[in-house]
Amino acid sequence: MPHVLSTTDPDFERRFAQLLTMKREDSPDVDEAVAAIIADVRARGDAAVLELTEKFDRLALTPEGLRFSGEEVDALCAQVSAEEREALELAAQRIRAYHVRQMPEDALWTDPDGATLGWRWTPVSAAGLYVPGGLASYPSSVLMNAIPAKVAGVPRLAITVPTPDGVANPLVLMAARIAGVDEIYRIGGAQAIAALAYGTETVAPVDKITGPGNAFVAAAKRRVFGKVGIDMIAGPSEILVIADRHNDPDWIAVDLMSQAEHDESAQAILITDDAAFGEAVARAVETRLETLERRAIAKRSWEAFGVILTVRDLHEAATLSDRFAPEHLELCVEAPEALSAKITHAGAIFLGNWTPEAIGDYVGGPNHVLPTARSARFSSGLSVLDFLKRTTLAKMSPAALAAIGPAAERLARSESLEAHGLSVRARLDRLNAR
Amino acid sequence: MPHVLSTTDPDFERRFAQLLTMKREDSPDVDEAVAAIIADVRARGDAAVLELTEKFDRLALTPEGLRFSGEEVDALCAQVSAEEREALELAAQRIRAYHVRQMPEDALWTDPDGATLGWRWTPVSAAGLYVPGGLASYPSSVLMNAIPAKVAGVPRLAITVPTPDGVANPLVLMAARIAGVDEIYRIGGAQAIAALAYGTETVAPVDKITGPGNAFVAAAKRRVFGKVGIDMIAGPSEILVIADRHNDPDWIAVDLMSQAEHDESAQAILITDDAAFGEAVARAVETRLETLERRAIAKRSWEAFGVILTVRDLHEAATLSDRFAPEHLELCVEAPEALSAKITHAGAIFLGNWTPEAIGDYVGGPNHVLPTARSARFSSGLSVLDFLKRTTLAKMSPAALAAIGPAAERLARSESLEAHGLSVRARLDRLNAR
Repeated sequence: MPHVLSTTDPDFERRFAQLLTMKREDSPDVDEAVAAIIADVRARGDAAVLELTEKFDRLALTPEGLRFSGEEVDALCAQVSAEEREALELAAQRIRAYHVRQMPEDALWTDPDGATLGWRWTPVSAAGLYVPGGLASYPSSVLMNAIPAKVAGVPRLAITVPTPDGVANPLVLMAARIAGVDEIYRIGGAQAIAALAYGTETVAPVDKITGPGNAFVAAAKRRVFGKVGIDMIAGPSEILVIADRHNDPDWIAVDLMSQAEHDESAQAILITDDAAFGEAVARAVETRLETLERRAIAKRSWEAFGVILTVRDLHEAATLSDRFAPEHLELCVEAPEALSAKITHAGAIFLGNWTPEAIGDYVGGPNHVLPTARSARFSSGLSVLDFLKRTTLAKMSPAALAAIGPAAERLARSESLEAHGLSVRARLDRLNAR
Repeated sequence: MPHVLSTTDPDFERRFAQLLTMKREDSPDVDEAVAAIIADVRARGDAAVLELTEKFDRLALTPEGLRFSGEEVDALCAQVSAEEREALELAAQRIRAYHVRQMPEDALWTDPDGATLGWRWTPVSAAGLYVPGGLASYPSSVLMNAIPAKVAGVPRLAITVPTPDGVANPLVLMAARIAGVDEIYRIGGAQAIAALAYGTETVAPVDKITGPGNAFVAAAKRRVFGKVGIDMIAGPSEILVIADRHNDPDWIAVDLMSQAEHDESAQAILITDDAAFGEAVARAVETRLETLERRAIAKRSWEAFGVILTVRDLHEAATLSDRFAPEHLELCVEAPEALSAKITHAGAIFLGNWTPEAIGDYVGGPNHVLPTARSARFSSGLSVLDFLKRTTLAKMSPAALAAIGPAAERLARSESLEAHGLSVRARLDRLNAR
């Protein structure tokens, strides 16, 4: 049974607060092991990476074998069916079209005081994308990470993907090729993050690392942060569906299960203004759970973390949704735009019941790398901005310095930073002497 | 003596690489102490904050006294001279005018397949700004952090500033008032960060924390990251000046000293295409160091980390500057715009010799919170974007789902995520049955 509650319950606020702070994930503490792996890769480079790859992936490589050759990529891509390749290409084209619109503009203007001000955006010189191996090796994630980097103009984009026992996922290679990835390495774990951050004889260092991974990868990303930029550390997936009675309960049930099937720690939440509809969805979930391939995982997620929450009206639904600040929010109501306008915190919103969240995972266009664990309160999904940085520009004319320099000098003196003031004063004196 | 080198030195590359990786700061390991303080504030709220404030700031407060009252702020602001107030107001007006232009636009469009896509930006609901006490309590930093938050539309902005022995800096209070800060608390250290992140009886929690601080504050920000958003962890300040012979050596000297005076760990670098000019600047620095108020600090910074680097031409200067990826970059050359176009990595660029970096610290308009320690390779200065988050939007028409849904279903199957595919299939079947 999921958690079933209603805003009319006498102890609602207490139970809701418990739901909000419920811990869903036990991260093993691997920080010491990861620190040792990073130190080893920094000290011994390729030699350490090769040893660790043999140990963890049961794969003996030479330094030349760390990187997939063009022929190896060709051979793996040839295994991908035409149908799958076309689906990946459609997804890539739509993701690219969306992200191209995110490119920010440079600016430069001269203000009335004669100060020319502005900024300009430039891509990072090199980015590294971590792709997990095994079951969670998702070609869609390759597209979602690599395409924004290439749209941003990153000239060098490297992927690391572990190939346990030498087995590679052809779809991952195909997605990398479609996205325009420049280098692909068959390494994983903390050793891959260390190689990307610090470089080895074979892997040139990058400036930014993105992509999901297990506890070792997450700990390694935290450790190299500062030396390089990283994206968010993603937690287990979440969906919150706000649905009124004018929905097929089965559609909502399968939408909820599409997140529950990811991970036992995933969370699926239904908020409805109709208790009977909530019960119908609960029954539909039970029916789906009888046959789903990943029913064992989905069932454990649903029973531990699933929520069916009945509210008085949709306004209340929006308020409570904001407290969850969900990664994915489906608005299956008659006027989804009006309800959307009441939402402040969500990673991605899916409007209307013809927009199942799974569309956004693959072909919608927006990014599927989104803030989890309530971090949509203060952060955003992956975008081209993650692969760009902004340099501010300022140029004073002598007249501009004369106009605003004395205020700078005054504030420098107030902050006891004399040389700051003198750097302005030296120039003002020259102007006054003219 | 600073480090003096030339690209024509036989061992140049080795020495330059050493300069790049030179460690300038020894951060004391305070992580355990900070973890204990955060746990204490989470467990005991105000009571813990009051005890820690008495211990570290020698200040006994009641819960009501944790927050400055309006009358207390009035009284402190009354101590600020008219000249200082006007300088702060000019700075605030210019910073606001610059940051208003950074506000990103929302977007919504319908593509040829009938999919409506877009995004919208919303401010965080509450932000907290840490302001150091004592010598580094800079009113300019209050403006630089608070104004972008208010421009972004953050409805609740709180400041924490320690007041050791009860002494507050009137200029900090005045800057907070000018910037429109909503709440000001007289607490500091890790306990302030814990109170902002987790809340106490008196301090409501915030969603984002920014602002500089000592090792305790930095460690606390790292620890609460995830629970709330944080800005970068800033390192010691840096300036890199590229100057040709057509400059007054004293101007360049005092510009270099304006960063060196910040901190013994600060770094000031001159790159010039004229060795004799470099020597003249070195002499001018020595002269300035005889009289500067903060000469003890500036001298230690200059002798340990200062660099005078002679290059063959300005193209080489740009290439080497990019390897430093400096926080502040002054281009004191005849054609600064042309040289600027060759630069890829810098936090802020100051064009021409009428633009001393100190203008940017106070009144230029761009933010003075900038990436240090080579992180301009992958990150940007503080901006309104740090106080906003983006929600992506997607709405499929039935026709759009029919057009792109099958590709999503195909990819879901390839990734063994059956329920993802079924959530699309359930809707496609309904369409087909029509």
